[in-house]
Amino acid sequence: MKGRRLGMREIPGGGSTAVRLRAGQGVRLVNTHGSQVVDTWCLATADSSEYLSVEQTRRMLFRLFAGAGDDLYSNRRNPLLKLEADTSAGRHDMLLACCDSWVYQFYGCAPGHANCRDNFLRALAELGMAAAVVPNPINFWMNVPVTDNSKLALEAPVSKPGDLIVLRALQDVVVVFSACPMDVTPVNGVDRTPRSVAYEILAQA
Amino acid sequence: MKGRRLGMREIPGGGSTAVRLRAGQGVRLVNTHGSQVVDTWCLATADSSEYLSVEQTRRMLFRLFAGAGDDLYSNRRNPLLKLEADTSAGRHDMLLACCDSWVYQFYGCAPGHANCRDNFLRALAELGMAAAVVPNPINFWMNVPVTDNSKLALEAPVSKPGDLIVLRALQDVVVVFSACPMDVTPVNGVDRTPRSVAYEILAQA
Repeated sequence: MKGRRLGMREIPGGGSTAVRLRAGQGVRLVNTHGSQVVDTWCLATADSSEYLSVEQTRRMLFRLFAGAGDDLYSNRRNPLLKLEADTSAGRHDMLLACCDSWVYQFYGCAPGHANCRDNFLRALAELGMAAAVVPNPINFWMNVPVTDNSKLALEAPVSKPGDLIVLRALQDVVVVFSACPMDVTPVNGVDRTPRSVAYEILAQA
Repeated sequence: MKGRRLGMREIPGGGSTAVRLRAGQGVRLVNTHGSQVVDTWCLATADSSEYLSVEQTRRMLFRLFAGAGDDLYSNRRNPLLKLEADTSAGRHDMLLACCDSWVYQFYGCAPGHANCRDNFLRALAELGMAAAVVPNPINFWMNVPVTDNSKLALEAPVSKPGDLIVLRALQDVVVVFSACPMDVTPVNGVDRTPRSVAYEILAQA
């Protein structure tokens, strides 16, 4: 298997998927259209109560955001993933919660709007898994600039079509991607249109 | 009851308590010695799955941190509390998770070290309540400065003895305070010594 590419798969705009990675395997995530935010979670296969924690990752890195080369830590301070490569300008949000039914209710949308929280739970269920909690995700390509060391904004991604990241599993994990269904704020581009992304599993390096 | 002061109570350094507030009631929290961080949670009395969310509060305020006059929002974007007053320099952390057994394990402490996560669960249990999740708290007086719009540090509080905050309940809530037991990092002062704080319930304004 070493080095063999296992084939690209698409996640439709607003959709999600969960993939199992053995330690040493990776996953390449491609922002096909350049404008799509991908909410990303990671759980330890051995115990789904251990999950990628943006809070602990911030604390371990002493930075608000992770960048290429950084390890991503669990709620028990164990490294689960390495952000091995990133061709974008590195604007990935780790400050905001995933969208959920309450967010769309807040925006006045009709009930039943697709949302990343439900996407997470459904993708896990498709693997026969349940999560006790919905952790805060890393929102790849989500552009939440910080200014004056205090202010936040929600802006369109600065990523380009074809930008990609590579995540490398540091232990056996499940990774969940949700191509965020947000169509109210400009986080998925100024035209507020969720679009597809693609991923492929990478054999052990 | 209007305007009557209901008496100060002490929380020992490293200890915790949970208090019920009806809508309109408040609680004054006093940093008696000036150096103590107080991890603070709030749950809706009617449904403990609705809780103060630092993630949603950041999003609603478009700021990393809350200050005097700000509402504090739930995971459903409902305002639960108002931070009505703050005599300190306003350095309160909303970026880091509470300390837990894994943090002290990481630091090489002996098993059984007091921690804010267990403090939260125990204080709720004393009210006959259980929480499905342990939300990220607001860490009052915890000094986590942000520099270069990206870097974090853990520093001693800048608060003074007697500094206080007032939280006003915007609906019926339970508030949990943990006088953080951290004695490894300098968040509770350069001498790394948890100390008592005090609080009193305030009648409806």
